[in-house]
Amino acid sequence: MENIIPNSDQLIITRLGPACFNSPLKLSTIDGDNIANYVDDDDKVLFDINLKNLREAIVGKSDIPAFELAGPRDKLFFDPAKSKAAIVTCGGLCPGLNNVIRSLVMTLHYNYGLRNILGIPYGYRGLVPGLGPEPINLTPDFVKQIHERGGSVLASSRGQRDVGQIVDFLVSNRIDILFTIGGDGTQKGAFAIFQEIQKRNLPISIIGVPKTIDNDIAFVEKTFGLETAFSVAGEAIRSAHVEAVGAPHGVGIVKVMGRHCGYIAANAALAMNEVNFVLIPEIAFDLEGPKGLFALLEKRLAEKDHAVIVIAEGAGQNHLEAVAETDGSGNKKLGDIGLFMTAAIKTHFLKIKTEVSVKYIDPSYMVRSVPANSHDAIFCMQLAQNAVHAAMAGKTGLIIGTWHNHFTHVPMSLSVGNVKRLDPEEPLWLSVIEATGQPFMIKNA
Amino acid sequence: MENIIPNSDQLIITRLGPACFNSPLKLSTIDGDNIANYVDDDDKVLFDINLKNLREAIVGKSDIPAFELAGPRDKLFFDPAKSKAAIVTCGGLCPGLNNVIRSLVMTLHYNYGLRNILGIPYGYRGLVPGLGPEPINLTPDFVKQIHERGGSVLASSRGQRDVGQIVDFLVSNRIDILFTIGGDGTQKGAFAIFQEIQKRNLPISIIGVPKTIDNDIAFVEKTFGLETAFSVAGEAIRSAHVEAVGAPHGVGIVKVMGRHCGYIAANAALAMNEVNFVLIPEIAFDLEGPKGLFALLEKRLAEKDHAVIVIAEGAGQNHLEAVAETDGSGNKKLGDIGLFMTAAIKTHFLKIKTEVSVKYIDPSYMVRSVPANSHDAIFCMQLAQNAVHAAMAGKTGLIIGTWHNHFTHVPMSLSVGNVKRLDPEEPLWLSVIEATGQPFMIKNA
Amino acid sequence: MENIIPNSDQLIITRLGPACFNSPLKLSTIDGDNIANYVDDDDKVLFDINLKNLREAIVGKSDIPAFELAGPRDKLFFDPAKSKAAIVTCGGLCPGLNNVIRSLVMTLHYNYGLRNILGIPYGYRGLVPGLGPEPINLTPDFVKQIHERGGSVLASSRGQRDVGQIVDFLVSNRIDILFTIGGDGTQKGAFAIFQEIQKRNLPISIIGVPKTIDNDIAFVEKTFGLETAFSVAGEAIRSAHVEAVGAPHGVGIVKVMGRHCGYIAANAALAMNEVNFVLIPEIAFDLEGPKGLFALLEKRLAEKDHAVIVIAEGAGQNHLEAVAETDGSGNKKLGDIGLFMTAAIKTHFLKIKTEVSVKYIDPSYMVRSVPANSHDAIFCMQLAQNAVHAAMAGKTGLIIGTWHNHFTHVPMSLSVGNVKRLDPEEPLWLSVIEATGQPFMIKNA
Amino acid sequence: MENIIPNSDQLIITRLGPACFNSPLKLSTIDGDNIANYVDDDDKVLFDINLKNLREAIVGKSDIPAFELAGPRDKLFFDPAKSKAAIVTCGGLCPGLNNVIRSLVMTLHYNYGLRNILGIPYGYRGLVPGLGPEPINLTPDFVKQIHERGGSVLASSRGQRDVGQIVDFLVSNRIDILFTIGGDGTQKGAFAIFQEIQKRNLPISIIGVPKTIDNDIAFVEKTFGLETAFSVAGEAIRSAHVEAVGAPHGVGIVKVMGRHCGYIAANAALAMNEVNFVLIPEIAFDLEGPKGLFALLEKRLAEKDHAVIVIAEGAGQNHLEAVAETDGSGNKKLGDIGLFMTAAIKTHFLKIKTEVSVKYIDPSYMVRSVPANSHDAIFCMQLAQNAVHAAMAGKTGLIIGTWHNHFTHVPMSLSVGNVKRLDPEEPLWLSVIEATGQPFMIKNA
Repeated sequence: MENIIPNSDQLIITRLGPACFNSPLKLSTIDGDNIANYVDDDDKVLFDINLKNLREAIVGKSDIPAFELAGPRDKLFFDPAKSKAAIVTCGGLCPGLNNVIRSLVMTLHYNYGLRNILGIPYGYRGLVPGLGPEPINLTPDFVKQIHERGGSVLASSRGQRDVGQIVDFLVSNRIDILFTIGGDGTQKGAFAIFQEIQKRNLPISIIGVPKTIDNDIAFVEKTFGLETAFSVAGEAIRSAHVEAVGAPHGVGIVKVMGRHCGYIAANAALAMNEVNFVLIPEIAFDLEGPKGLFALLEKRLAEKDHAVIVIAEGAGQNHLEAVAETDGSGNKKLGDIGLFMTAAIKTHFLKIKTEVSVKYIDPSYMVRSVPANSHDAIFCMQLAQNAVHAAMAGKTGLIIGTWHNHFTHVPMSLSVGNVKRLDPEEPLWLSVIEATGQPFMIKNA
Repeated sequence: MENIIPNSDQLIITRLGPACFNSPLKLSTIDGDNIANYVDDDDKVLFDINLKNLREAIVGKSDIPAFELAGPRDKLFFDPAKSKAAIVTCGGLCPGLNNVIRSLVMTLHYNYGLRNILGIPYGYRGLVPGLGPEPINLTPDFVKQIHERGGSVLASSRGQRDVGQIVDFLVSNRIDILFTIGGDGTQKGAFAIFQEIQKRNLPISIIGVPKTIDNDIAFVEKTFGLETAFSVAGEAIRSAHVEAVGAPHGVGIVKVMGRHCGYIAANAALAMNEVNFVLIPEIAFDLEGPKGLFALLEKRLAEKDHAVIVIAEGAGQNHLEAVAETDGSGNKKLGDIGLFMTAAIKTHFLKIKTEVSVKYIDPSYMVRSVPANSHDAIFCMQLAQNAVHAAMAGKTGLIIGTWHNHFTHVPMSLSVGNVKRLDPEEPLWLSVIEATGQPFMIKNA
Repeated sequence: MENIIPNSDQLIITRLGPACFNSPLKLSTIDGDNIANYVDDDDKVLFDINLKNLREAIVGKSDIPAFELAGPRDKLFFDPAKSKAAIVTCGGLCPGLNNVIRSLVMTLHYNYGLRNILGIPYGYRGLVPGLGPEPINLTPDFVKQIHERGGSVLASSRGQRDVGQIVDFLVSNRIDILFTIGGDGTQKGAFAIFQEIQKRNLPISIIGVPKTIDNDIAFVEKTFGLETAFSVAGEAIRSAHVEAVGAPHGVGIVKVMGRHCGYIAANAALAMNEVNFVLIPEIAFDLEGPKGLFALLEKRLAEKDHAVIVIAEGAGQNHLEAVAETDGSGNKKLGDIGLFMTAAIKTHFLKIKTEVSVKYIDPSYMVRSVPANSHDAIFCMQLAQNAVHAAMAGKTGLIIGTWHNHFTHVPMSLSVGNVKRLDPEEPLWLSVIEATGQPFMIKNA
Repeated sequence: MENIIPNSDQLIITRLGPACFNSPLKLSTIDGDNIANYVDDDDKVLFDINLKNLREAIVGKSDIPAFELAGPRDKLFFDPAKSKAAIVTCGGLCPGLNNVIRSLVMTLHYNYGLRNILGIPYGYRGLVPGLGPEPINLTPDFVKQIHERGGSVLASSRGQRDVGQIVDFLVSNRIDILFTIGGDGTQKGAFAIFQEIQKRNLPISIIGVPKTIDNDIAFVEKTFGLETAFSVAGEAIRSAHVEAVGAPHGVGIVKVMGRHCGYIAANAALAMNEVNFVLIPEIAFDLEGPKGLFALLEKRLAEKDHAVIVIAEGAGQNHLEAVAETDGSGNKKLGDIGLFMTAAIKTHFLKIKTEVSVKYIDPSYMVRSVPANSHDAIFCMQLAQNAVHAAMAGKTGLIIGTWHNHFTHVPMSLSVGNVKRLDPEEPLWLSVIEATGQPFMIKNA
């Protein structure tokens, strides 16, 4: 799934210091007593799970990289009675933000007995004195029903802020643990905060919960919100299909999120079995020419009279004139490939004097603003529980990930700055190819 | 609800001739035997239901207009064993089209025993020899599950066709009854067909089932799809609200359907109690000035930090430069007021140097392509049952409407060409005013 | 719809006294200015809408009964600045309770400026000193999101309480207006409170908002929650159909609410077009014999291999041994007809040595505990707005109803104690007969 | 997750013979060309993924067990042009059955070019000549929309049939590949068919697709339908919570599926964050006594006034009198623990003279009859694609599983007869404990 294989050293997790307090969780250390065990720092999840590769590694005596397993530790670095945590959500909305906030609070409060939890409003802006409103006091009562609603009860904003000011804020507010919920940009910021804290030698833990509806965080198998997103995007695809079928030579186009990677597009297309073409940022495609998209579309309409195209927002950018703008987070703003494709297809069919009825749907805000579905609700809860476990044990500079279905500690130093891509050779994409019937390459050469 | 009050003569329904066949429905003609009664042509629903107005009418001895009540008649004009029906769906998609088709077929087949039913593909185009694909043979087996899916199993198209050719088609295909499912444009076409049939003195019945998601058919209280539409549009409003709350000075804008009337906008806003401004075609509004929308929006953001605006597609057209295009149905193409408002609000707040974060949602295709909800499913079935009853009795040139909650026969001659508007003085709009708190007039003078 | 026709005197609404305060709503009294008009007490909705009947009435010079139209009055009895309202919800849960509570509060607060609003917990119990918890102070902030959740934020309980104690409570808490949200039992209680208040000659208004998921309030066309209920019940029917189709000789049975009337059963069956038999309290049916249900079921299974039966909880009670219990509200507890039918069908087919696979679904709690759907959300809001208008004008002893699609004032003296029944001769039931194909009578004689 | 660790020999997959035909899929064998690669039989997924355990295994030179990876092979055993497949669904309904059927057909037809595919009606019954209806010819057109509906288009039945007769049927119908979609009972049957085929030395492949909504297939990480099931069960929990909150001392009880294992209960409880007690078959619990459930419930009601209990159907069976019945599949019929608990709690609180209002919801048929959600839709498609790949390559006697998120080949000989249990020490259960706050043991000793 990842082309870069890290080495063991890159997977080492930073600790603030020796963990001296006993965990209040009252778990077990023995198997078979029907009580969950504390996780040991030596419990690690193999990076590569393929026996063939493992054999080669053993024979070649090479390093066997593995992620530290997340979970409750028997010894804590922080004294729950005296510690204070803060939670911040950054970047665009994503289904599950409120679930993560809620479970962080519930786990800190009920499982560890921590009583001081601050909610930072409007992203990193709220960590800069004077810029945002005052922090909110987060209690079980405040959060108990927030998971029923989309968005973030803390609200969010984009953009980086001065790291020194943020660390000053943490110090002056006596915050021991900061949970940063956000995507790669956010975790880049969190990593900078972590480095500043290290420089100042402060006992403050920075724990990231990766939030990217696009699922593009490196060394993290899956991020929350993705499942909800492709479920909702599927509704838009169903609409596009109904519209395509409902008119002569109907073409339905749905643009889904995915600036750099096609996970939502691929999954949504699989979930709603009506898609003929899936276009993603990872795979360039031609429009014109005998093997280009237009030729394929002509063939499809001639045979079946309708077609459905799903396109990730970051796909086919070469077909657009470069747009130099960036949004508040420093992300390059993408030209709207959906509108472009709609116009391009209309123009093409006009040119070849063939009737076409193109309907374009952009469900983006409706996708990202819904509450988490059941799958993501569970996932968010477990991410939050593991984030709390890591923080209380004094781990820092890490994000909570999953790998081969296990929750892991991923060093920020490894993950930030890399971006995950959908590998056209991974089984997911093969499923798309098999299900849509589209060729591996929509290219003339 | 209607400003024009028809007179009794305008409400007279045309019949093809004497009804000679006994209805196979085996209903009753007496009350109290627990078996439904046939409806008499003298059963009529009062146009005006207000006692005060009635008293004035009686005193003034004026005409008391009333709609003929729809329902099964004891005598039929057509012999079910020998008759043939055809169904056509025209114009844009609307939730419930398949329900109407299904119930027309089921009622004709099971209740009346009619065995020849044709589905005309792609709207009126399919009634012109050579233009469309061949008609489809509609059977209970063919239609039994179509209501679970959005769109129209017959597909649709826009535009009028040559009336002479259509009547030729009906004659050459020995079609006795034509059900035309569509909006005002469609019923205009149906009325022309009806007139041509009258001119040729043919025993062919033309029965319209009004289909307009906008609910803009004159003298028809409610049209199918509206309820489903505002339910789904409500989801978009919820998203807009979540987005508005999730960012500093967030504004969510949702454009809903409604070329000439604001029923979807008004109902969707009431259904989803988060809307601050509802803008509809019937009521002009100012943007600038002390009582304009921008001023109201500034005030709202200053007080509550977020706002939600619902706008019907036909609202505020004066603010757009006129766009001369028309779509295939001859409708004037509207400029996109949603995109315009999004840009205008951004520009305004930039000008006054106030932060704003505007998110625009256009859920139109997702609204109109879903299956009918339970309310509309029942409504569509009853419209179809009553359309069949009317046709079998030899009525013609009418559309099936509802008035004060009763199904009625509305002469095409009365309805077509008029367009229903939401009356700003009707209780529905008062509910909107009370619920949103917006002023009756967003105008400076 | 109603067999009893009231006379004009029975429709007179009680007023507490002259209305002296100007309404703060700033509505209009003239048509055509695009501002809604105040409603006049002379605006009345005709009881009977059929022109034929009206003609007979006029000729016979008989009384023409009509309901007072609900809506805002220009003069108020209560001074908003000094008045205090209370809200109580009684009986079983019903979708929309929170919507009604919310809109009562919002309308009182924002439209009339009333600031003292109490929520009475746990039904009438909360109006008896010492029995329930203290009343809750209801503010816009408290209620703003409650409509997103099912149930009642005030909770509920069953059973009548001492009327004297309740009126004492109202007096000692200086409550001017009491909104009673509940079914016939609740309104019976409210009527007793109203009578006690009249006896004591107190200026306290009692306004009922009829809440019965069964839709069985007399002289009220439709009650809130019904639409949501039959929509959700439809999901259970869909499941029953899938189960029936999925096994040899499959029979799916769904029990829906409806102690005395079959509105949910009839509507749910129409909404989900897969039902073969609808059994309701209003129509007795035989099980055995050549025209009994078992014979019809045998025939259906022989022909189609599966069948779906929808049964209202109050149907077929004669087949059950009488159960003498009553619930807390004094309602006679019904034996479970669903379980009985399931067993009876299994036994019958065992007896005739024919395979059968019966699946029984009772979705009752899942139906009544969901949030209101969009239709009911709007309906609840309008009921609440009109309840507030009535109360502020000093009307009392009435419930807010609808008649021919208009909101009305219905005297409690007329409505309570009567129970609405589905008339087997009304168009709704004819639709059921036409759609299911079941006979009018499932009876041998 | 599994307490039994298999050895490598137990994981060996049977092949019918050498694979001689080239795959028509046109995949690649090299990395980096953006075309998916064929899977090699040496590609294996490690059974144990923990580095600590692996180190011990390497040092001890013990066997390293691993599952064969599923996926397309470059050489096929069957010639697609001449082969014939059959599909059978057995046991109870489960969300996703139609998705699996659809994708089996689509993959066989479009990706491999196989044209003869039979659908066997009513489970194994349909494989016995004379017992069931004739097989159905499955084509893309037949299956293209079946995934939108719950249940199985082939219908199902319970019970084993004579293996000899079934193999005779396969031979006489020239079936080369049989896909058996069903739970442990079904796969036991499939394994017997496989053994009979081996005895007769026939070139027929038997490929199981594990279907158990309970997720109780051994050596298979997850089965389809589970995600949909706990999502829908969550709705019932939400209702139970609303009901519990809506009455004084309200207790909501929801029974979910899970005869032997608590996966649905655990996941549904996590998905819907309102549950206080989760009772599963794997963990016995006391009712009476200071640490029993009643005492915990009393405490909870005293503190919070309401409680929600989720109980798997197989939990607490010791509290029920043994019921000796078995259903058609030979499963021991379980007494209804939900009804029992409802009665027991009422009795207990009556005994201690404390008010309680218990509402019991059994959503089972509504859970299992819905269409697959998006997650399961994708999962079903991938299971089916991999089942086809395995079959075409001549693999047999296996079921398609997943392990650490990879699709695997699991020998029937290993899996059948074992039943997976939720391990109280696995992270999932810890999440439940952390989220509900219930103790690990609800036991007095």
